Amino acid sequence: MNKRIGIIGASGYSGEQLVRLLLDHPRVELAAVTSRQHAGKTLESVFRKFAGHPKSGAMRFSEPDARGLARNVDAIFLALPHGAAAEYAGPLLDAGCVVIDLSADFRLKSAQVYREFYGHDHPAPGLLEKSVYGLPEIRREEIRKARLIASPGCYPTSILLPLIPLLKNGLIRHSSVIADALSGVSGAGRKAETDYLFCECHESARPYSVPKHRHLSEIEEQLSLAAGAPVAIQFTPHLVPMNRGILTTLYLEPAAKLTHEAVAACYHDHFAREPFVRLLAGDNLPDTKHVIGTNFIEIAWRLDPRTGRLVVMSALDNLIKGAGGQAVQSMNLVCGFPETAGLVG
Amino acid sequence: MNKRIGIIGASGYSGEQLVRLLLDHPRVELAAVTSRQHAGKTLESVFRKFAGHPKSGAMRFSEPDARGLARNVDAIFLALPHGAAAEYAGPLLDAGCVVIDLSADFRLKSAQVYREFYGHDHPAPGLLEKSVYGLPEIRREEIRKARLIASPGCYPTSILLPLIPLLKNGLIRHSSVIADALSGVSGAGRKAETDYLFCECHESARPYSVPKHRHLSEIEEQLSLAAGAPVAIQFTPHLVPMNRGILTTLYLEPAAKLTHEAVAACYHDHFAREPFVRLLAGDNLPDTKHVIGTNFIEIAWRLDPRTGRLVVMSALDNLIKGAGGQAVQSMNLVCGFPETAGLVG
Amino acid sequence: MNKRIGIIGASGYSGEQLVRLLLDHPRVELAAVTSRQHAGKTLESVFRKFAGHPKSGAMRFSEPDARGLARNVDAIFLALPHGAAAEYAGPLLDAGCVVIDLSADFRLKSAQVYREFYGHDHPAPGLLEKSVYGLPEIRREEIRKARLIASPGCYPTSILLPLIPLLKNGLIRHSSVIADALSGVSGAGRKAETDYLFCECHESARPYSVPKHRHLSEIEEQLSLAAGAPVAIQFTPHLVPMNRGILTTLYLEPAAKLTHEAVAACYHDHFAREPFVRLLAGDNLPDTKHVIGTNFIEIAWRLDPRTGRLVVMSALDNLIKGAGGQAVQSMNLVCGFPETAGLVG
Amino acid sequence: MNKRIGIIGASGYSGEQLVRLLLDHPRVELAAVTSRQHAGKTLESVFRKFAGHPKSGAMRFSEPDARGLARNVDAIFLALPHGAAAEYAGPLLDAGCVVIDLSADFRLKSAQVYREFYGHDHPAPGLLEKSVYGLPEIRREEIRKARLIASPGCYPTSILLPLIPLLKNGLIRHSSVIADALSGVSGAGRKAETDYLFCECHESARPYSVPKHRHLSEIEEQLSLAAGAPVAIQFTPHLVPMNRGILTTLYLEPAAKLTHEAVAACYHDHFAREPFVRLLAGDNLPDTKHVIGTNFIEIAWRLDPRTGRLVVMSALDNLIKGAGGQAVQSMNLVCGFPETAGLVG
Repeated sequence: MNKRIGIIGASGYSGEQLVRLLLDHPRVELAAVTSRQHAGKTLESVFRKFAGHPKSGAMRFSEPDARGLARNVDAIFLALPHGAAAEYAGPLLDAGCVVIDLSADFRLKSAQVYREFYGHDHPAPGLLEKSVYGLPEIRREEIRKARLIASPGCYPTSILLPLIPLLKNGLIRHSSVIADALSGVSGAGRKAETDYLFCECHESARPYSVPKHRHLSEIEEQLSLAAGAPVAIQFTPHLVPMNRGILTTLYLEPAAKLTHEAVAACYHDHFAREPFVRLLAGDNLPDTKHVIGTNFIEIAWRLDPRTGRLVVMSALDNLIKGAGGQAVQSMNLVCGFPETAGLVG
Repeated sequence: MNKRIGIIGASGYSGEQLVRLLLDHPRVELAAVTSRQHAGKTLESVFRKFAGHPKSGAMRFSEPDARGLARNVDAIFLALPHGAAAEYAGPLLDAGCVVIDLSADFRLKSAQVYREFYGHDHPAPGLLEKSVYGLPEIRREEIRKARLIASPGCYPTSILLPLIPLLKNGLIRHSSVIADALSGVSGAGRKAETDYLFCECHESARPYSVPKHRHLSEIEEQLSLAAGAPVAIQFTPHLVPMNRGILTTLYLEPAAKLTHEAVAACYHDHFAREPFVRLLAGDNLPDTKHVIGTNFIEIAWRLDPRTGRLVVMSALDNLIKGAGGQAVQSMNLVCGFPETAGLVG
Repeated sequence: MNKRIGIIGASGYSGEQLVRLLLDHPRVELAAVTSRQHAGKTLESVFRKFAGHPKSGAMRFSEPDARGLARNVDAIFLALPHGAAAEYAGPLLDAGCVVIDLSADFRLKSAQVYREFYGHDHPAPGLLEKSVYGLPEIRREEIRKARLIASPGCYPTSILLPLIPLLKNGLIRHSSVIADALSGVSGAGRKAETDYLFCECHESARPYSVPKHRHLSEIEEQLSLAAGAPVAIQFTPHLVPMNRGILTTLYLEPAAKLTHEAVAACYHDHFAREPFVRLLAGDNLPDTKHVIGTNFIEIAWRLDPRTGRLVVMSALDNLIKGAGGQAVQSMNLVCGFPETAGLVG
Repeated sequence: MNKRIGIIGASGYSGEQLVRLLLDHPRVELAAVTSRQHAGKTLESVFRKFAGHPKSGAMRFSEPDARGLARNVDAIFLALPHGAAAEYAGPLLDAGCVVIDLSADFRLKSAQVYREFYGHDHPAPGLLEKSVYGLPEIRREEIRKARLIASPGCYPTSILLPLIPLLKNGLIRHSSVIADALSGVSGAGRKAETDYLFCECHESARPYSVPKHRHLSEIEEQLSLAAGAPVAIQFTPHLVPMNRGILTTLYLEPAAKLTHEAVAACYHDHFAREPFVRLLAGDNLPDTKHVIGTNFIEIAWRLDPRTGRLVVMSALDNLIKGAGGQAVQSMNLVCGFPETAGLVG
């Protein structure tokens, strides 16, 4: 049976991609999209690229009214800036909606860590324990039963998927993790700030938020859960001149002597049957151009006999596997659809 | 007194940039440029951007004739592919020319390491001990007296300049060095290969040569000399979609407890009077767009109290400080010109 | 009923996009893909981005054997370089296959014009009269009955669709047509030539093939058919630094006094029910970013009261509406599928 | 004798380029740079790329105080937004300064045309007749004697230089001129507007301000002066994804039968001795990458025997020949320096 779906806050890059995925989804009726800025306008007047889509027809942005929406849809996506999602989630959950949040608001379990990284108290701490961290490859069964899904973003996904299997299998030293990541500019959102002007980004490669990026909090919480012990990592994000894509390089020290085959076995055990994980063989290394426009993550690894380190690399599309696509993957699970519905073929 | 200068192999991106720098140099007469491919053609017909330059006038590419050139110039730059420089250097040196080589041919001291990394014997091993590694900030006095200068390339410069002071001062653990570097596509040279087509690089970020890039050999040799002990590092180069620029992020573990001030003192001791090193203060982090078109390297660092690591970042223009500009800086030293001649203002 | 489809020559940018469209098409089984270069390899080893696609599974490139293919498929796409398609089309047609050719080989009716523009005799002139020029918005009924469809490329489509309605309605002076077009670099194909290297295209905007580009021949033939009289136009293609997209600006002189409403009426008569033509209203002007990844063409127009000219602008994705998407649109017609199958939602 | 120079409003892209040119100029002391936004800050803290420049040393931005500046400098550049220059020019001229304005404020002779295109009365109409349109190739002698120079911008320069010789020599029909131009994004200035974000410009080619761009007013006024009769043209600017560069394609109808040689003779008469005009021969066509970073304009032309039209193409760097470089060229004339001082070699 098909489901009626709504999106609150659909005017950013992630929201726009999510609209595209849901319009094209075979099992879903996109019943409502809200935007304070665009309320009353048709979807196709705001996002011209949807004009002519058979399902976008007369759809209009509405005001974000949680209670009204809750009566009208089975599940709702929140694609809002940090801090705004918490205000909607409670009422929607009370009204019986499944909520899939693309922001960072419900990704942490610890209200204290939230305060440390975000500088203020969490606005709805009671919901933190109810939320499920929506990484389907890691928490598939929890997601199926969840009512509140905190869908992870681009950096966490690019780091967690390659790392969690290694930590679970005890293959690497917990204190050794270094994550160096490159992001396309859409990761900064559709904000009219000088830093993200074309001429400031073109011919520019630059690190930022060194050494303590906010998303470290959720990354470390998830890594610690996987490792069964506290894990703190080094993380350096960089902005590079492309629209989309995350390329992450992980530097790791083996816990004990490690072989290429042992790493391969670990990844194959965890990911060989995963529909969206592409383990690269032979000489292949991840490249954002091979995942852009898809929900795939590519992973490759090299053991360096000279240094003893394990180098793991991943690539994904920050707006799909790192945002809307991953959220749809969770929706498929919670709605009982095939996990790949609307995401391939 | 001005000098007469020649360039052998001036048709690649580095060669072209070198021509530009020497044409604009106030103390130099560019007396000869050679190119097998373009011999007989005027410089401005091959590189239209030099048409109208008051000094490029009727200059023509000639065949690369080492002996003829040696009689005609005071110093000569070799901007040739790997392996080709060795054939010219001997005859030119014998004829009394100063030789500044932009290739990797004379950057190693050890013929054995050369064989390990390049897969064949060095063609002129006797010259290895005569060459000076042309990093002016590190070997200024040796360069002044050199006859054969092996000018370092973009990755080595971006890694060595920020690391050598730390190693010399004993501030970091030798085995801890990880260098993650991003390069613009001109670093691959003007080769008609599918991998470097516009559509293969645009919207692409990708690692390559993992884990053993050839330039590791010279980087480690120089680091070991600075440290007074063998240093082996982790190095991952990435290609990102820009024409120019190298952005390198170094992950280091302090040898003992370290403060921001101690790092600052170390860098100021080594670099405060360097004309081409820009130590960034405050919130500033390196950005390739601020060094492109210049001979500067930007350096910034952060101590991470959470992990105990030192993160150092650098940015430079791969075709200037990472190629032709650095070579001209060495030329200025060897010719007795002001070190910044032709490189600023 | 679904159809079995083959592609001969699937390793260029157009071929790759066509593979993607056919893999995702709900009514089609992609039964064969050929490539001399890649014969024997799996599709996903050559185009990694198809790895994990549920329908690409064990598919392998085969040698291009026209007769063998003809027995195995209902229709076949030719995505070959200029001149190679003519060799396959005859045998395939003889064996009863529908042939959809993406090259320019069968787009002209006149063998004489072919010789003028291509510099040699047409290799299969007898097929020219049998082919249908595959512009669905203009020749829908002919395409439904065709056995050999010559699917137009990016420049012709971007020029013909906005112009033909105006010419049919007699609104513009035949001799006044000027078409100025901007193309992304994928239009040049996946050729390892220096001109299309990243560093040669980035920060470059340049005209080429001025004043007589080969595709003028088919553009003028189609315009003349629409006008009922010979039409010769001015056409200047430019290369701009983007992967995909064509933006065309047409400068036209009205045949008689013209109003905005008359132009609007003309376009609405021809295109209002077209599923892939987006007529822009209000202040909107075409922008390649709004059509990339889709089979849409955007069209807008302005009458200039100062000069009396009509300026018409169009935008499309050169690899979809300008290549594979348009060919699939024709396939849908000839196979009796809904025209938009596999091309939206 | 050297001159003391000031810049009012030096924080946009044009201002920044102008600072660079004047810092490197051999005959100039940059005595003052003003910026309301940055007053009190050092030049190198605002534009990090000037840090380490031997002449930028301790230079600070000051408040824009016209009278104070006038006492301190010989000539002053105004690099201000439209409308702001008029407020400064009068007091500076009264105080005896030469004023070189990079805005459009003084480029028109007719206050009535100003009102038509800018929508309000000119704030200082009395200065319009005193200003000289600063196109050195056309008004060299007037510029030498000017006190107020209105330096033309990128689109006008790219159109006027190729057109004026043809109009002066009576070679083309006045009513036939069509100018289709492509601009890099820096032409839009350093404004924090959504339209100029990286992700809105990358993979985007788009026309704008069709059919009546403001700069038409000055273009047509200058063309009419050259032709000795009113000239109205068609002009379509497009934004393409590069930082710098203008590529203009002109479509023209000959006034009478025209040969390639006649066009060549016309251009050679006007431009053969011009230091910054590069007339392209053979198969060469203009390409922005060959002029970026220089004060050159490239020009090529083709007569189309099929249509009878003359197609002329030009390329320049919008921030140099289309802004600061051209202004410095005028400064050189007015100060009695060699015209190329600080602009080549």
